[in-house]
Amino acid sequence: MTAAVLSIGTELTRGELVNTNASWLAERLTLLGFEVQELRVVDDDVGRIVETLRALASKHRVIVATGGLGPTTDDLTTIAAAQALGVGLERHEPSLDAIRRRFAKLGREMSKTNEKQADFPIGATILPNAVGTAPGFAIELDGARVFFLPGVPFEMRRIVEDHVEPAIASLAERTTHQIRLRTFGLPESVVGEKLSGIEESEPAVTLGYRASFPEIEVKVLARASNHAEAEGIARRIAQTVRDRLGDAVFGETDDTFAGYVGQMLRDRGLTLAIAESCTGGMIGAMVTSVPGSSEYLLLDAVTYSNAAKHDLLGVDVELMRHHGAVSGEVAGAMAEGALARADAHLGVAVTGIAGPGGGTDAKPVGTVWFALAQRGAPTVTRTMNLPGDRERIRTLASYVALKMVADAAISRGRA
Amino acid sequence: MTAAVLSIGTELTRGELVNTNASWLAERLTLLGFEVQELRVVDDDVGRIVETLRALASKHRVIVATGGLGPTTDDLTTIAAAQALGVGLERHEPSLDAIRRRFAKLGREMSKTNEKQADFPIGATILPNAVGTAPGFAIELDGARVFFLPGVPFEMRRIVEDHVEPAIASLAERTTHQIRLRTFGLPESVVGEKLSGIEESEPAVTLGYRASFPEIEVKVLARASNHAEAEGIARRIAQTVRDRLGDAVFGETDDTFAGYVGQMLRDRGLTLAIAESCTGGMIGAMVTSVPGSSEYLLLDAVTYSNAAKHDLLGVDVELMRHHGAVSGEVAGAMAEGALARADAHLGVAVTGIAGPGGGTDAKPVGTVWFALAQRGAPTVTRTMNLPGDRERIRTLASYVALKMVADAAISRGRA
Repeated sequence: MTAAVLSIGTELTRGELVNTNASWLAERLTLLGFEVQELRVVDDDVGRIVETLRALASKHRVIVATGGLGPTTDDLTTIAAAQALGVGLERHEPSLDAIRRRFAKLGREMSKTNEKQADFPIGATILPNAVGTAPGFAIELDGARVFFLPGVPFEMRRIVEDHVEPAIASLAERTTHQIRLRTFGLPESVVGEKLSGIEESEPAVTLGYRASFPEIEVKVLARASNHAEAEGIARRIAQTVRDRLGDAVFGETDDTFAGYVGQMLRDRGLTLAIAESCTGGMIGAMVTSVPGSSEYLLLDAVTYSNAAKHDLLGVDVELMRHHGAVSGEVAGAMAEGALARADAHLGVAVTGIAGPGGGTDAKPVGTVWFALAQRGAPTVTRTMNLPGDRERIRTLASYVALKMVADAAISRGRA
Repeated sequence: MTAAVLSIGTELTRGELVNTNASWLAERLTLLGFEVQELRVVDDDVGRIVETLRALASKHRVIVATGGLGPTTDDLTTIAAAQALGVGLERHEPSLDAIRRRFAKLGREMSKTNEKQADFPIGATILPNAVGTAPGFAIELDGARVFFLPGVPFEMRRIVEDHVEPAIASLAERTTHQIRLRTFGLPESVVGEKLSGIEESEPAVTLGYRASFPEIEVKVLARASNHAEAEGIARRIAQTVRDRLGDAVFGETDDTFAGYVGQMLRDRGLTLAIAESCTGGMIGAMVTSVPGSSEYLLLDAVTYSNAAKHDLLGVDVELMRHHGAVSGEVAGAMAEGALARADAHLGVAVTGIAGPGGGTDAKPVGTVWFALAQRGAPTVTRTMNLPGDRERIRTLASYVALKMVADAAISRGRA
């Protein structure tokens, strides 16, 4: 059962606003079991709206259109729908009364132009708008169910939940199941390599990849004769993917990397202290994005200057002079300083050159030193040369540092 | 001269991703003088990609397509482009070398699957990718210029600027000019009120608003018989907008709020120390996102626990016990502690309840205390009850704190 989404409005074709309605609708339709094959955006032109409606109706069983139901002269969707059907418009008095009541309730004068929001193609089904002025409506075009909704996101969503989903839920049978695995640590090409052959040997499965730097999401989509069967296949293949990618997989769906790291600490009753330089607070911001992170994060000292490294973390001035602030020695001293200051189980430190300036031949932009200090264990340091611009270097460095924390927590076990 | 944008990817038709590429491209094409009539999104299906390319090529002179150029099996755009042309693929050795060099530079192993990123439809024009692996390419289809670009936003944008805009700029006459003013501190409704009447008195001007929390961007779009004239009008109205919105306007186009705050400090030779609690490093991460921020940021102490507030910032334990960690007294002591610790000119502190837990009747979730300490001036504290979820509360709190820093720097003058 295929479906399509149509967004109407010159403000969209001009790129004046991002089309969040389309992605929201596409996701809802997908979850209902529809195969959404295309999303379209057309400007406020009756001819093009009509043409697009006919093209979509000839291909899909369900079409959800948004926008162009307002009171102004460039709101042409209702006229276009009527033309596509080859019928006229008729005024719907109950809707007009509802619009009048709404204005009265807001203590506002209803303008004449608002009356057109109560006009609909003859024979259309009205979809009352519980939270706004313009009702939506539904028509049957070439055997396709076409729903027209206002473009205001919260009004559109409410009408979808109140009227559209109940009307179409029975049309689609949910025969797919998708599991999204979130990974960090392997480049997309390597992920693809490690998973090669799965789709060939599992025709019911499609693997998708989405890079949202620095993470890569692997989507396992399984198709079967019913949802339960599809879910079983998806779970089995998701396990295969986990086996092949190892600990690069940190979670599913909406799990976050910071949440994963926090869980590794919380499960073992471990506390963390952070010392940041080039990441400038990013690591702390990531860790504390997780509710309850105060249970395990004791301290994050963003010591941007050498003076701060010395005053707050007790990093030896001589050490910095001799090795430079970007060195394994200083990273180690920062981690140990943070560990001692907060009396934590784990201390992690990052010092590097995020650029664009500050690079040298010996230490080019992207040079980053990491250190992990542990109560009762030797401090470990490592260096990497990270690619990309300042923001990417800082983001990647934050992930690498937190990955070191998670790995240390896992290998360390309970406090 | 009409144009269209095509976005390719099942992650888009399933609504897993908001299509920001399409709106960005639509805006750029519009600014170049093209009439963008439609935006389309299709899933990763060769047949539908081919069909859509042909349909768009028959109607528009310029088409920009994004997505599906990656190394994985669901990247099918190149094959579809070749089928639409009725030609085969050929390997482009210079591109393959470039990809190899890129992997070598990153010290990574190039996997076999990446080689397909150097395959293009026979006769296609290659569009080198200066910031990523996959090059784009351009073809001529039914007299339409069709550009294929990677879906990774920053790679796509770079190739548009390097290759696409130079190739198509001459096809359209540019008769508009847009200036984007970035603001923080006024709700969208207030911004709209303060700017009311401008469009009525300036028919050649359209004002657009884009909220990207917590900032609001005001777009001044001017139309005229030629670009120079349009630019003149846009500049004049932009000044009117600045006059009406006052210091809520912090910059234009790609200026960042953190960059603005940094400039206020740098211009006056002032240094900053930060003490964070609920924002957990966000303020530091924002400040240090600006290259050269080490000139003015001396320290950011993320003191999540009371112990850290005491140990690092010298906040009196009795004070915390008596007023609670979320109080004006503690915020003030944190700011003064950071100021003294780093011997900075300005010290800013934030302590609050970001939620979802931790709220009380007296101090509900969203309660945030701010303090600004200055060398040789009394410490100022203020409180706000911030709306939204944990992430919004933290983000808004970070902006409010930095706004206090910028305002203090301005009123303080040179060090």
